[in-house]
Amino acid sequence: MGYNIVEKILMNHLVVGEMKKGSEIGIRIDQTLTQDSTGTMAYLQFEALGVDKVKTKRSVAYIDHNMLQTGPENADDHAYIQTVTKKHGIYFSKPGNGICHQVHLERFGVPGQTLVGSDSHTPTAGGIGMIGIGAGGLDVAVAMGGGEYYIKTPKVVKVELKGVLNPWVTAKDIILELLRRLTVKGGVDTVFEYAGEGVKTLSVPDRATITNMGAELGATTSIFPSDETTLQFLKAQGREQDYTEIKADEDATYDEVVVIDLNQLEPQVACPHSPDNVVKVSELKGVKVNQITIGSCTNSSYVDMMKVAEILDGKTIHEDVSLVIGPGSKQVLNMLAANGALAKMIGAGARIIESGCGPCIGMGQAPANGAVSLRTINRNFEGRCGTATAGVYLVSPEVAAVSALTGYITDPREFGKAPEIEMPKEFLINDNLIVSPAEDGSKVEIVRGPNIKPFPKAEALKEKIEGKALIKVGDNITTDHIMPSNAKLLPFRSNIPYLSDYCLAPCNPEFPKRAKENGGGFIIGGSNYGQGSSREHAALAPLYLGIKAVLAKSFARIHMANLINNGIMPLVFNNAGDYDKIDEFDELVIENALAGVEEGKITVKNKTKNEEYPMNLVLSERQKEMILKGGLINTIKDK
Amino acid sequence: MGYNIVEKILMNHLVVGEMKKGSEIGIRIDQTLTQDSTGTMAYLQFEALGVDKVKTKRSVAYIDHNMLQTGPENADDHAYIQTVTKKHGIYFSKPGNGICHQVHLERFGVPGQTLVGSDSHTPTAGGIGMIGIGAGGLDVAVAMGGGEYYIKTPKVVKVELKGVLNPWVTAKDIILELLRRLTVKGGVDTVFEYAGEGVKTLSVPDRATITNMGAELGATTSIFPSDETTLQFLKAQGREQDYTEIKADEDATYDEVVVIDLNQLEPQVACPHSPDNVVKVSELKGVKVNQITIGSCTNSSYVDMMKVAEILDGKTIHEDVSLVIGPGSKQVLNMLAANGALAKMIGAGARIIESGCGPCIGMGQAPANGAVSLRTINRNFEGRCGTATAGVYLVSPEVAAVSALTGYITDPREFGKAPEIEMPKEFLINDNLIVSPAEDGSKVEIVRGPNIKPFPKAEALKEKIEGKALIKVGDNITTDHIMPSNAKLLPFRSNIPYLSDYCLAPCNPEFPKRAKENGGGFIIGGSNYGQGSSREHAALAPLYLGIKAVLAKSFARIHMANLINNGIMPLVFNNAGDYDKIDEFDELVIENALAGVEEGKITVKNKTKNEEYPMNLVLSERQKEMILKGGLINTIKDK
Repeated sequence: MGYNIVEKILMNHLVVGEMKKGSEIGIRIDQTLTQDSTGTMAYLQFEALGVDKVKTKRSVAYIDHNMLQTGPENADDHAYIQTVTKKHGIYFSKPGNGICHQVHLERFGVPGQTLVGSDSHTPTAGGIGMIGIGAGGLDVAVAMGGGEYYIKTPKVVKVELKGVLNPWVTAKDIILELLRRLTVKGGVDTVFEYAGEGVKTLSVPDRATITNMGAELGATTSIFPSDETTLQFLKAQGREQDYTEIKADEDATYDEVVVIDLNQLEPQVACPHSPDNVVKVSELKGVKVNQITIGSCTNSSYVDMMKVAEILDGKTIHEDVSLVIGPGSKQVLNMLAANGALAKMIGAGARIIESGCGPCIGMGQAPANGAVSLRTINRNFEGRCGTATAGVYLVSPEVAAVSALTGYITDPREFGKAPEIEMPKEFLINDNLIVSPAEDGSKVEIVRGPNIKPFPKAEALKEKIEGKALIKVGDNITTDHIMPSNAKLLPFRSNIPYLSDYCLAPCNPEFPKRAKENGGGFIIGGSNYGQGSSREHAALAPLYLGIKAVLAKSFARIHMANLINNGIMPLVFNNAGDYDKIDEFDELVIENALAGVEEGKITVKNKTKNEEYPMNLVLSERQKEMILKGGLINTIKDK
Repeated sequence: MGYNIVEKILMNHLVVGEMKKGSEIGIRIDQTLTQDSTGTMAYLQFEALGVDKVKTKRSVAYIDHNMLQTGPENADDHAYIQTVTKKHGIYFSKPGNGICHQVHLERFGVPGQTLVGSDSHTPTAGGIGMIGIGAGGLDVAVAMGGGEYYIKTPKVVKVELKGVLNPWVTAKDIILELLRRLTVKGGVDTVFEYAGEGVKTLSVPDRATITNMGAELGATTSIFPSDETTLQFLKAQGREQDYTEIKADEDATYDEVVVIDLNQLEPQVACPHSPDNVVKVSELKGVKVNQITIGSCTNSSYVDMMKVAEILDGKTIHEDVSLVIGPGSKQVLNMLAANGALAKMIGAGARIIESGCGPCIGMGQAPANGAVSLRTINRNFEGRCGTATAGVYLVSPEVAAVSALTGYITDPREFGKAPEIEMPKEFLINDNLIVSPAEDGSKVEIVRGPNIKPFPKAEALKEKIEGKALIKVGDNITTDHIMPSNAKLLPFRSNIPYLSDYCLAPCNPEFPKRAKENGGGFIIGGSNYGQGSSREHAALAPLYLGIKAVLAKSFARIHMANLINNGIMPLVFNNAGDYDKIDEFDELVIENALAGVEEGKITVKNKTKNEEYPMNLVLSERQKEMILKGGLINTIKDK
C-alpha cells in the first residue's frame, strides 16, 4: 500500500507513538520560527530549559507583529530577541525584513522537513511541501531544545484540483471555496493534501496562499507536493540545494477526498465576520468601500504585488478610498522599488506601509466606524481590525486593486484583461537584515529592557490544594476573554505581570485584584472553556495570579493543553449540575491531589457549602507527569 | 527709510492697529493650513462661525499626525475633515500625501502672502518668502472665516549668512548654530529675516529647514527672500505664476543683526533634551546609536532623501541600528521610487514608513528604553519620542545616514566625498491625493463618526461667579500637564469629553471627577502657568469641565491667549502671597465680574477663609469683549 505525502513526512520524523488516527505521536522538528508577539515568551521559556544552543537544523526569530512602536515596549522586545537569539544559535530577522511566513518561504523553508512556529499561519510553509504547524511558544521552545512535538495523528484529506483557473480567478478563491464548503470547523485534526492536475498550474506563492489560509479551516496544516514548480522557486531564491521532490505514491490512500473544479470558480469574497461566510464577488456589486488593504502573510508575494501595480498603473484610486499596501518582505519591497512597480502604486495614491502583519492583526490602519474594509488577509473576525463596528471582506489582491479604483466592490472580470506576471527567474537576494547567530554565544550579553519580565513557573503539585472560587463564568469563554489581545495590550506579551491585570477582565475586571488578595485560587467555567486562539498567555496569566485549577463543564482542546503545559489542572465536572452549586468566594479544597492525578479522578470539597464534587482529569502519561512536576519546563529539565 | 521683508509683507496685510514694536496688530490672512490633530477642532470651530465658504485665497487641510490608526478614531477624524472641507471650500490632502509643511511648500505656498496654520512649524513656508505663523485652531478658523489674525508687532532680527558651507555641513547645522547661540527663548516676539551672500547658496528646501526649526527659537516666524532660487523651485513645481520677487530694501533697518560665517560651521548635533543643547558632532565621536530616523517636516525633501540614498547605496546598516526613513511627501516618495533611490535605501536595510509626522511626535517608532536615537527632526524634548528614558539627538540627514552605517555618532567628514545632488528641473507633479472642494457645498453631507464630539462653548460672563478651588498646582505647569498629549491620547483631539478625563491628571488624577462633581470651579496656579505648546485643548478641556477662571501668579503668553479665546478669565494675583492662603476646596466667589473686567481688577472672596484677594486682569479691548461675550466664537458671530 502506498503513502500520501503527509504520511511520508510524518513517518520520517516519528519519534514517539504509533501512527493510528487520533492517537498521540511525537515528531522530530527540523525547523522552528517565532514571531515577536509570541516569541519573547518562547525565548524566555527556552532560556528556562537551560540549553546552550538550539538543536534544530534551523531556527529563526522574526519581528513582524509589534512594529508600530507607540511606546518603548516593542523596541525593548526587539533588543531582547536580537540578543537572546544571537546567543543561542538562532537567526534573527530584523524589523523591516518582512512577515515571518513570507520570508521563511523565500529564504529558509525546505521541502520534506518539519517546522513548528509560534504563529497559527505556520502552515504557509506547506506551499513548498513542508509540514508546518502552529503551536504555543513553549512547544516551540521545547522543539528548539531538541524535544519532540506532539500531535494527534491527523486525518488526511485529499483536495483534488481539476482544470485551470479562469482569468481574474486566483488561489485565494480556491481556499475561499474550500472554506465555503467545509466551514471554519471543517479541518479539526486534519491535514489537507493538495493533488490533481490543477496543482502544476499554481505557483509557489499561490500554493502558499492556500496552505496559509488552511489555518482558517481549523486544520493541523495543509501541504502541496514539492515538484518542478518548487524547484524553480528555490532556484530563483538561490536555494536549489534545498530541493527534494515530494509526491504521494500512485496508490496512496486518503481519509476523504474533496474535488474542486478550477474552471468553475469565480472571484469570491468572505463577508463579515467569518472567513467561511463566502459569496461570489458578483453578488456584492455596488457595495461602497471605505478602505482597502493589500498584504499580510496570505497575499503579499512579489507576483501578488506586481499584479496590483499593473492594475493601478497610471490610474487614480477612488477619492473616498484609503488604499494601504504592505509588501510581504524586504525582498518583495526592494524588487518593487527597483523595477518601478512601487512608483506605480504610489502614483495611483496607495499608502505604502512597512512589511509586517499590521492591519491584519489590528496593529494600525483600523478603519472608521461602520466602514467597509476590503482586505487580502486571512481573518475577518469582528473587531480584529481594531474597529468593532467595521465590516471586513476578504478578497484576492486583484479584486482589491480593481475595487480601489472604482470605490465599490467590483468583479474584476468587468475590468478588462487580467495582468499576467511571470515568476522571476531570479529574486533579489540580500539577507542583510538577517543577523546570524554568534559563533561563540557565551560572549553575547542579553539585553533585557524593563518590558521583559520573567514568566511565571508552576511548582510541583502539592497533596493538598485550597483556595476560593475567585470567579465563575459562563459557557464558551474565549481566550480573548481570558487574556485580551489588542493594539493596547499586544506590546506587553513579554510582560505577564502587566498583562495579568487584564486577565478575565471582560468577564469581571475585579478578578486580577481578587486573585492577588487571596493568594490565588480557582476559576469556575462552563462548557467549552478557553475556545479560540492558541495564545498560551491565557494560561500564563492565571498561573501568575496563582490559579491552581480550572473547574469547568468542558474545555477547548488547545487551551486545555496550554493549561497542562503550565501545570494548571483542567478539571471537568463529573456532574455538570455541580457547576450551579458553587458560588464565587466559596472555599474549596482538594485533599488527595497526587493520587487523584494518577487515577484521573479528583474530589473537590466545598468547605463553605459542605459539599463534594467529583471531577475528571483525563490525561496521557506525558500529561500526568507535567501536572505532577509543575508543567512542561520542569518535566524537560528533569530529563 | 527702506523696509525689510517682514515690514513689507506685514504692512501690505495690515488691517487693524499700528506697526509699533510690541503693540497688537491685526493682519489679513491669505492662506491657512491645518493638520489633523488640531484640524478637527479648527473645523468644528469654523462650523460654529456659520460661514458657508472660506474667505481665504487658499485653505488646505492635511492628514499627517494621526496616521497609525490603532483604533477607529483616526479614520473617523479623516472622514470628518474630508467632508467638512469639501463642503466649505477647503482643499483636502489625503493620508499618504505627506507632511503639511512639505506639501504646502511644494504645491501651495506663495511668496509675499500670509499663512496661518494650526501647527507650530508653519514658519516652514518662510523658505519661499511667505509669512507663515503657527496658531491655535480657533485662530485658523477665524482666518478661514475672513477675520484678521492678531500678533504683537514683532522685533525683526537680520541673520546675515556669510560665505559658503563646507562639504558635509548643511542647512540643519546653520539653524542648530543659531539655537546654540540664542537658545530656545531667543526668538520670543521676533521674526528672523535671513540675508547675506550665503542665502543664494541655499536651496529652497535648505531654507525651509532653517525657517522650520526657527520655531525652536520661540520665534513668531522666520523668512528668506524670494529670489531666483525661489523662482526655479516654483518653476520645477509647475508654479512659475506664483512667483514674486521679495527682497529687503538696500537701506532696510533691523532691530538686531546676527552674523553666521558658513565657512566656519561644522556638522552639529543637539543633545538631549533640548534643541539648543548643541555641540559639534566631532565631540560625540563613538557614542553608540540604537535607532536613527530620517524625515519629519524639517528634513524630508527630495534632495535630503537623495543624499541619504547615495550614502547608503550598496552598503548595509550596522547590525544594531534600526534605520527608519519617512520621505516628506507623496511627491518625494514617488520620485525616489521611480528613480531607484528608494531601492538603494531598502537594499541597505532601511525601514520605510509613511510620509507623516510619525516618530517626531511619538506616533510610532519609539526607541527602546535607554536608547540613543539620532533623528533629523526638530525637537528632542524628554519623552516626546514615546520613550521617557531615551536620548534623542538632532542632526542633519547626512550625519544620520553615515552614522547608520557605522553604528556610532559619526562625523561625516571622515566618510569620504559628500554626495552632490542637483535640485530637479521638474518635480513629479501628481496631485491625485488632494481632493478639491465641491463646486456646490450645500450637497455635501458631513460624516461625523463617534469620535467627533461637539466642542464646548463658553457663555457670556455673569455678574456673580462662584465655585470651589478645585486644584492647586505649583510653578511652571506646562500644557502637557494640563492636557497630556501622547500616542494614546492624540487620537482623541476631536473628542473633548474624552480628553477632559485626563485634564491635569499628571498633577492630580482626581481633578476631572472633582470638577464634574462640583459643577466646575477654579484652578489655582503658580508662576508661568501654561508654558509649552500652543495646544488650545489645554483651554478647551477646562472649559468643558466648567472652569470659570484660573488664578495664578503669572501665565505663559500663548496659553493665556487660549484661555481668553475660550472665555476663561486668567486672573493674576496682585499679591503673590495670596496664593499660599488658598486651599483646595475653599469656596470662592467673584461678585462684580462685569465691572471688574472693564476695570482690569477683580476681587476674589474666599468664603471658607473669609478673606479677599485682589486680582489683575489686564486685557486689550478686543480681549475684554471676548471675556464678556464668552470667547472668540461668540464675539465673531455677533459681527
